Amino acid sequence: MKAILSHRSIRKYKSTPIEESLLNEILHAGVRASTTGNMQVYSIVVTTEHDIKKQLLPCHFNQPMVMQAPVVLTFCADFNRFNKWCLQRNAKPGYDNFLSFFTAAIDALLVAQNVCIAAENNGLGICYLGTTTYTADKIIDVLKLPKGVVPVTTVVVGYPDEAPELTDRLSLAAVLHREIYQDYSVGDIDQIYAAKEAMPLTKKLLEENGKETLAQIFTDNRYNRTDNVAFTKVLLKVLSNQGFMNNEM
Amino acid sequence: MKAILSHRSIRKYKSTPIEESLLNEILHAGVRASTTGNMQVYSIVVTTEHDIKKQLLPCHFNQPMVMQAPVVLTFCADFNRFNKWCLQRNAKPGYDNFLSFFTAAIDALLVAQNVCIAAENNGLGICYLGTTTYTADKIIDVLKLPKGVVPVTTVVVGYPDEAPELTDRLSLAAVLHREIYQDYSVGDIDQIYAAKEAMPLTKKLLEENGKETLAQIFTDNRYNRTDNVAFTKVLLKVLSNQGFMNNEM
Repeated sequence: MKAILSHRSIRKYKSTPIEESLLNEILHAGVRASTTGNMQVYSIVVTTEHDIKKQLLPCHFNQPMVMQAPVVLTFCADFNRFNKWCLQRNAKPGYDNFLSFFTAAIDALLVAQNVCIAAENNGLGICYLGTTTYTADKIIDVLKLPKGVVPVTTVVVGYPDEAPELTDRLSLAAVLHREIYQDYSVGDIDQIYAAKEAMPLTKKLLEENGKETLAQIFTDNRYNRTDNVAFTKVLLKVLSNQGFMNNEM
Repeated sequence: MKAILSHRSIRKYKSTPIEESLLNEILHAGVRASTTGNMQVYSIVVTTEHDIKKQLLPCHFNQPMVMQAPVVLTFCADFNRFNKWCLQRNAKPGYDNFLSFFTAAIDALLVAQNVCIAAENNGLGICYLGTTTYTADKIIDVLKLPKGVVPVTTVVVGYPDEAPELTDRLSLAAVLHREIYQDYSVGDIDQIYAAKEAMPLTKKLLEENGKETLAQIFTDNRYNRTDNVAFTKVLLKVLSNQGFMNNEM
């Protein structure tokens, strides 16, 4: 519980490598995660070599932690292994569709979170890289992911070289619904975001970015429509190329 | 770590309810999960009422644990709350596309796994219901999920009334790739699945189902193409109806 409750994303790492036995221990925690029908339709690519990390760097928008952290883990939805098994066993796999991709992505994400908690529980720091889905096409090239395999998230792992404060979160009540979904009134929304909007960091961001509201920093800068649509096109093309968009009988 | 390493899916539950303070504690663990840009684009619907669980029951293929477990948690990708905030703050949300759905789904799944580990760490049992994506349209009706909200997984939680053995898993080496993806040879596949194929349970399943190979039980029965394609159509329609397939500028 302590690992879960004290999670911080770590963006600065010491150069200390992760002992092989510890790395194995945290990865082993991954395979204990729930998995659809016990199919384990995921793979973990463990990258530590300088040259390959350097190729991954632009895929993650040149964030220095990709080079700094000793280990980069790319979690992939993977039906390649399962499909090969089926074909070798006189069975016809029907996993070249979107549902199967999403099933495999769920598998991969539960594994990723187990690995992160195990890492943090052992004194390591982690950071998820959301860039993985934006540049999945390039990551596929670098990591030589075959058909049936799509990267869904990346985690850097290493010994922390910073000790950031716990990040603010919305109140639990804001994300919780009792029995069925209780939609938000105008007043609810004002209340839910009031604390975040009142933070000193918010005021600083508004000044730096010349914006009226914190929401505009998200819609205009950080997660804007132009990028979202461009990345959507990449991701849908990747799903098609990797063999997950054959959605007819 | 113990909670992670000793995870079993629990399918039989005692009628004992979960104390409100404990439920809050495990849900609180959820909001500490990593989330894209600290947007928290997810919601958790906590269903405990008999009548609503009964409506959810067919959505989960009438698995008795939906009624038996005191709590059913539906984890949703949710841009509704964030979009409303943007609109109230003179900001134009650009989150009606597939990339945004997938971002929100990642958020929701990391939250779900945190909640599961916290639950197991407190003596509760859990089981993921993969049926959520197959019948997302019906779950949306039952839980009154508005546009911008898609259920991605469901977890039942309660006090275990069974103590199953640890489920077999492929060896860690089978799902791990060093530096880049190392594709599988015919011999690799034979080796990876040998232990699973040799299990007494496998022999029993082959006899019961009249199949030659374990793989055929997956492709012909459990996860067959006809179902996968049908469920794909449901899921893609749901994404469109819920406002996540406006993939052009």
